[in-house]
Amino acid sequence: MDKGIFISVEGPDGSGKTTIIQMLKEKLEKEGYEIVATREPGGIEIAEQIRQVILDPENTAMDPRTEALLYAAARRQHLTEKVKPALEKGKIVLCDRFVDSSLAYQGYARGLGIDEVYTINQFAIESMMPKLTLYFDVAPEIGLERISKNKGREVNRLDLEKLEFHQMVRQGYQLLAERFSDRIVTIDASKQLEAVYHQAEAKINELLNS
Amino acid sequence: MDKGIFISVEGPDGSGKTTIIQMLKEKLEKEGYEIVATREPGGIEIAEQIRQVILDPENTAMDPRTEALLYAAARRQHLTEKVKPALEKGKIVLCDRFVDSSLAYQGYARGLGIDEVYTINQFAIESMMPKLTLYFDVAPEIGLERISKNKGREVNRLDLEKLEFHQMVRQGYQLLAERFSDRIVTIDASKQLEAVYHQAEAKINELLNS
Repeated sequence: MDKGIFISVEGPDGSGKTTIIQMLKEKLEKEGYEIVATREPGGIEIAEQIRQVILDPENTAMDPRTEALLYAAARRQHLTEKVKPALEKGKIVLCDRFVDSSLAYQGYARGLGIDEVYTINQFAIESMMPKLTLYFDVAPEIGLERISKNKGREVNRLDLEKLEFHQMVRQGYQLLAERFSDRIVTIDASKQLEAVYHQAEAKINELLNS
Repeated sequence: MDKGIFISVEGPDGSGKTTIIQMLKEKLEKEGYEIVATREPGGIEIAEQIRQVILDPENTAMDPRTEALLYAAARRQHLTEKVKPALEKGKIVLCDRFVDSSLAYQGYARGLGIDEVYTINQFAIESMMPKLTLYFDVAPEIGLERISKNKGREVNRLDLEKLEFHQMVRQGYQLLAERFSDRIVTIDASKQLEAVYHQAEAKINELLNS
């Protein structure tokens, strides 16, 4: 069995995931843990190539199922080349988005079905599910506002339809948090960064001290 | 429901698939049928891009499950963009290799498991299975010899291990032909081309006149 600990962090853009993963990494490293903070495709050449196919703006004809299979393929390769070796060395892996992103975005919000998308992801990951998943829950309006404020990104293109889509994503995540309540812990990400961080830190400490 | 008829042709290289699909196409077109003869990725841009990732000789780190997911993704896109529209127009689609190739090569011969590879392919194709599958059965030695004779390809690199792999592929196909006996018809492809053609033609006539 793997000696390391696999933790995924989920939630919409603007929920603070990336910043807090970095804060957790620094804090845990000070305590002597070896941490790998990553996100797909994570610099893995094959996964990067797959991502280029997914993101190519010319590929407007891409079918949602093709897309879901490509995400699963990139996930498999990232898992095999980066996550698994780190776990085998006893490291803690903090992964920014994992299977639940596909379930919430493509399974639920795009309507492919959570169970169907889960099935192809099971093929991709075999039994390598995270021991703990921190779900950063926040209303889409807040997340989108933070993105626009914090990073100067334009949100003009996020029209009403897109807001509805983000609301569906949130519903999807909330369903998953109920269904996999032994694995997924919901973090109230509407609060200030420090408060969100302390919730996340507490949950990870619980896991490390259990 | 689709008005057309979806037929796949399976078997190893050197079994005569490509030549006989062309002969069937010409014969059926003379009889007034509209025929689409295709094979994945079939000129579909997204599927071609995926195939490039699969075949890139630099990608030696590719995991077999990544590969299986990529084949399923390319299959989905080819199906959506080329096969389905042709069937909706009432055409007969003759497809050189389809799901059974993944089941025989990756599921059985590479050891990923027929059922597991079938699962991700079900996600890819939904219920769009061929009405009829012609499996061109031939001993690997004969197929490989034909390739070397007919097309001047080198077979030097096909060492003993690779022959064993091709034997596994044949076993896989034979298992599938038993398991899906209502869909898969075995054609004795060890015979001369004309004799193989007549077996295939008879099976298609049966289907068209049923």
